[in-house]
Amino acid sequence: MTALSSILNQLHTVTTGPIRGSHKIYSSPKDFPDMAVPFREIPLAASSGEAPVRVYDTSGPYTDPDITINITKGLTPLRSSWLKKRQFQNETSPRMVKPEDNSFVSEDQLIPACPAPHTVLTGEGAKLITQYEFAKAGLITEEMIYVAHRENLGRAQTGAVTRNGEGIPSFITPEFVRDEIAAGRAIIPANINHPELEPVIIGKNFLVKINANIGNSAITSSVADEIDKMVWAIRWGADTIMDLSTGRNIHNIRDWLIRNAPVPVGTVPLYQALEKVEGDPFRLTWELFRDTLIEQAEQGVDYFTIHAGVRLHHVPLTAKRVTGIVSRGGSIMASWCLHHHRESFLYEHFDEICDIMRRYDVSFSLGDGLRPGSIADANDEAQFAELETLGELTTVAHERGCQVMIEGPGHVPMDKIKYNMEKQQKECGEAPFYTLGPLTTDIAPGYDHITSAIGAAMIGWFGTAMLCYVTPKEHLGLPDRHDVKVGVITYRIAAHAADLAKGHPSAKLRDDALSRARFDFRWEDQFHLALDPDTAYAYHDETLPKEKHKTVHFCSMCGPKFCSMRISQDLRADAQRLAGLEQKKKEFQEAGDKLYVPTDIENTPAE
Amino acid sequence: MTALSSILNQLHTVTTGPIRGSHKIYSSPKDFPDMAVPFREIPLAASSGEAPVRVYDTSGPYTDPDITINITKGLTPLRSSWLKKRQFQNETSPRMVKPEDNSFVSEDQLIPACPAPHTVLTGEGAKLITQYEFAKAGLITEEMIYVAHRENLGRAQTGAVTRNGEGIPSFITPEFVRDEIAAGRAIIPANINHPELEPVIIGKNFLVKINANIGNSAITSSVADEIDKMVWAIRWGADTIMDLSTGRNIHNIRDWLIRNAPVPVGTVPLYQALEKVEGDPFRLTWELFRDTLIEQAEQGVDYFTIHAGVRLHHVPLTAKRVTGIVSRGGSIMASWCLHHHRESFLYEHFDEICDIMRRYDVSFSLGDGLRPGSIADANDEAQFAELETLGELTTVAHERGCQVMIEGPGHVPMDKIKYNMEKQQKECGEAPFYTLGPLTTDIAPGYDHITSAIGAAMIGWFGTAMLCYVTPKEHLGLPDRHDVKVGVITYRIAAHAADLAKGHPSAKLRDDALSRARFDFRWEDQFHLALDPDTAYAYHDETLPKEKHKTVHFCSMCGPKFCSMRISQDLRADAQRLAGLEQKKKEFQEAGDKLYVPTDIENTPAE
Repeated sequence: MTALSSILNQLHTVTTGPIRGSHKIYSSPKDFPDMAVPFREIPLAASSGEAPVRVYDTSGPYTDPDITINITKGLTPLRSSWLKKRQFQNETSPRMVKPEDNSFVSEDQLIPACPAPHTVLTGEGAKLITQYEFAKAGLITEEMIYVAHRENLGRAQTGAVTRNGEGIPSFITPEFVRDEIAAGRAIIPANINHPELEPVIIGKNFLVKINANIGNSAITSSVADEIDKMVWAIRWGADTIMDLSTGRNIHNIRDWLIRNAPVPVGTVPLYQALEKVEGDPFRLTWELFRDTLIEQAEQGVDYFTIHAGVRLHHVPLTAKRVTGIVSRGGSIMASWCLHHHRESFLYEHFDEICDIMRRYDVSFSLGDGLRPGSIADANDEAQFAELETLGELTTVAHERGCQVMIEGPGHVPMDKIKYNMEKQQKECGEAPFYTLGPLTTDIAPGYDHITSAIGAAMIGWFGTAMLCYVTPKEHLGLPDRHDVKVGVITYRIAAHAADLAKGHPSAKLRDDALSRARFDFRWEDQFHLALDPDTAYAYHDETLPKEKHKTVHFCSMCGPKFCSMRISQDLRADAQRLAGLEQKKKEFQEAGDKLYVPTDIENTPAE
Repeated sequence: MTALSSILNQLHTVTTGPIRGSHKIYSSPKDFPDMAVPFREIPLAASSGEAPVRVYDTSGPYTDPDITINITKGLTPLRSSWLKKRQFQNETSPRMVKPEDNSFVSEDQLIPACPAPHTVLTGEGAKLITQYEFAKAGLITEEMIYVAHRENLGRAQTGAVTRNGEGIPSFITPEFVRDEIAAGRAIIPANINHPELEPVIIGKNFLVKINANIGNSAITSSVADEIDKMVWAIRWGADTIMDLSTGRNIHNIRDWLIRNAPVPVGTVPLYQALEKVEGDPFRLTWELFRDTLIEQAEQGVDYFTIHAGVRLHHVPLTAKRVTGIVSRGGSIMASWCLHHHRESFLYEHFDEICDIMRRYDVSFSLGDGLRPGSIADANDEAQFAELETLGELTTVAHERGCQVMIEGPGHVPMDKIKYNMEKQQKECGEAPFYTLGPLTTDIAPGYDHITSAIGAAMIGWFGTAMLCYVTPKEHLGLPDRHDVKVGVITYRIAAHAADLAKGHPSAKLRDDALSRARFDFRWEDQFHLALDPDTAYAYHDETLPKEKHKTVHFCSMCGPKFCSMRISQDLRADAQRLAGLEQKKKEFQEAGDKLYVPTDIENTPAE
């Protein structure tokens, strides 16, 4: 057995401490003094006379210098007291870990389970379990109060508001959250077995969220790498992570991740099921899959991608495609269906899947197994046939009390993106859309974070609730730490551009603060307000590294003489001086002098 | 004086030779066997059975191994024979280089002029000079024939066509080019003093073009760096370059650039004029500016940014802005107007500017001096007041025979982009729009190639003809070689995504070829078809470096068991096998057997 100490030795790369130029704060919703909602606050130079800028914070306790991180103990289970009140039971006979859960790995290769304490809860017998059920019953949960405060960035109801998009109120109330969840328009993925979670809401009338995929593959990566990537991804702004591990030790790696994850964790249970049958899709069975769902639900996974929309009769629709089926889950299920010439067991047992997921409040992420993998295949019959099935399944899942979001493409040229959003909303009763990009061209492997950010920003504006990131390594290899950061920052850009275009009340505050800092040559304020202060500093320092360069009124792009901002500032000063002269002239004129010929100088700008 | 040899010693970084996995070819339009239009051809693996893919090529002779590059001799003047026929005269008294042209630099700091031969031509006395005048007169120039062939990628009229966007024909004829230029909807920037140019067309019914800004600043960079950046930028796909130098030796650096530039070169003559008055905008005069125009026109600059739309009465409109005036040219002119309390000399002398530019066929790029520099200032009164003036000036310039394009913003949230395009087209009679980004959020310094690629792709789709790149260093410093490449590739992505969305007939061919290669695991074909083969190789090699990994049916992202494409291929094979069984069954049934129960297996896919 791999010694625990060796894992811990590898964990030296987990990054803790504040993001440069900011610090963690906590704020409590009115009447809930015990609820501490995290934010990040960026103080500005005293010369600005401006209040600190508060921003959304996904980074969890890792950026709080007052908290000592100990991976073996896991994070503090902040939801425990909320969950305690909900009549859930300790599972008296939790599922035992089986050899196949870690791909039959030999003793000497086995990564030990995370020693953090974990008592399995079950909703069996409870009348209301899921956030959807509470919302439908008219009840506001602590999670709803938490996310409302979080979405408002702690603003008081009377606080600064810019303007509103359609459907987005100036101020998010817990009642509004409840209403959106009850309507199926939003979800809070929050397994009752993930008490360490800081809840997040996903829905079109909230801030656009992003997901980062991590996970080992059979080729590369270890548990230390994956925990490091998770902490790194949320540091830079990932709202959720998906553990897409497909290698060995898959159960135990997930254990470490969830006990240390302050964000919702999603998985594709089919991947682990396939590992259990040693990669042979034809050997998959409903019983094996069912057991895997329970295994992962008990661990605390918050949402499952379920490819139940890939039906037998959809498979022939992909025959003429340029890139066939590019979803792993989709291709596995299609192979199974075709080989056995049977309807998908996920579709046939969908009711049972709902009942299992309801029992722990695992949210559905209905997978788009037939998403287009190339521009040529976008918006084709296969894609939309599956989407119509997903609409049908959404109704079933809601009827059985589950929270649901819908996965979307993929590769789509710009002119075909809007239709994807409209069709998804129509077919799936406005359930949140969760898209991968989409990539707007196929010709830039190595830059697919960019080809896809274009599509992601657009579809986010049109109403997609969560954007799954794409890294520069897409199509080429497993992303490393640097790729994860680039992917996350790129997707924060796309999500924020979408929030701005939707007119989210709090989005523009940060842009305006940064632009004022830029115009005032408060370089450090500008860097601290950036999505990635470290890179902004580094780039600036490449040509102007000295401390005094942080206050000069130019940069190396234009140099001192050609800085438009400097000239523009001088211009304002000049205008003020001229306005002063004009004022003197007026006073003189009013005193009787008639020598001056009036000009239109009163049109000159004044601050 | 800096020795010529020292400059040449520094030029070792100019990159020559083919782009990996492709080679240069030349193709001649029908009936013009002497005209050699360059393309790049990417051969595919024999196993594919596919023809080589031909792509647009901006890289000039630098990627042709049969041409020996000698920077001191300049490029071959391929347009000379065309120009000879047009009644232009050798200028008998060309303007002499003056000390202020190189910022009064001392003898020991002076970079020598490029020794390549250059005879100054003037259109004085010729009846038709500009491409606009030829087009209006119903005459097709060699430049028009050249760009038509170039836009078609050498396709014959009967060649492969996918689908058409509004206004874009399946096949570009020289007559169509003439028609678009005569309507003012397109331009071919081609100074009669830039015979080394490979002509390019810029207009909404053609492929979307991109520009890369280079140029030294007072702080950093040298002539060797700038030539290197130019060659590097066109290697990766810049259709034009702008020399925005503002430091010393500005005249002579430009000399080296133009004599070695196969792409149109644009400048902002105001920058050099300001250098001549040692950076004091108040000392600028019409006479000085006029002299600078002639200086640069004689050198062969193909388009001038002229900020004639910034008028005295516009200046007060910027007073309440968050970021004032962010265009260098705009801020210089606004300062001048306000200080002297006079109308802009560019506006007052616009007729004369037109006459000078017509004489050499220098195209107008009417500058947007009041473009918004922040999300807060987008689409404001100042921006649109200037745009209306630009519309007025477009009419004047057309009346005086000049080619015109219009510069656009800047920083614009996604929901306000489309209106920019519509207003520009309306105000400026469909003259080509040439935009910087726009950046869709202010909060990501260090990643503004991405914030702006989102806006660039969208506005390109809506009709913008040329996109000015933004590099990762925007707002932070002068871009280096790596930044230039990242900026160019990012903007090639945006332009190509726009071409796809517009339905340009040749755009999708490359996507489809790459996607087929991807699905077939022809890794090297995939890399060669990429915008940046070197990066695609490097990323793939990070985890799978061996030669055999270029043929395996998986990558390190998913590993062998989880490769959806591999599974999808197996599925097709399985389907074929099953279809074969079905065929046998059918034959058996037709032979009389009734034991089999019919299934819907005939729906399974077949290749």
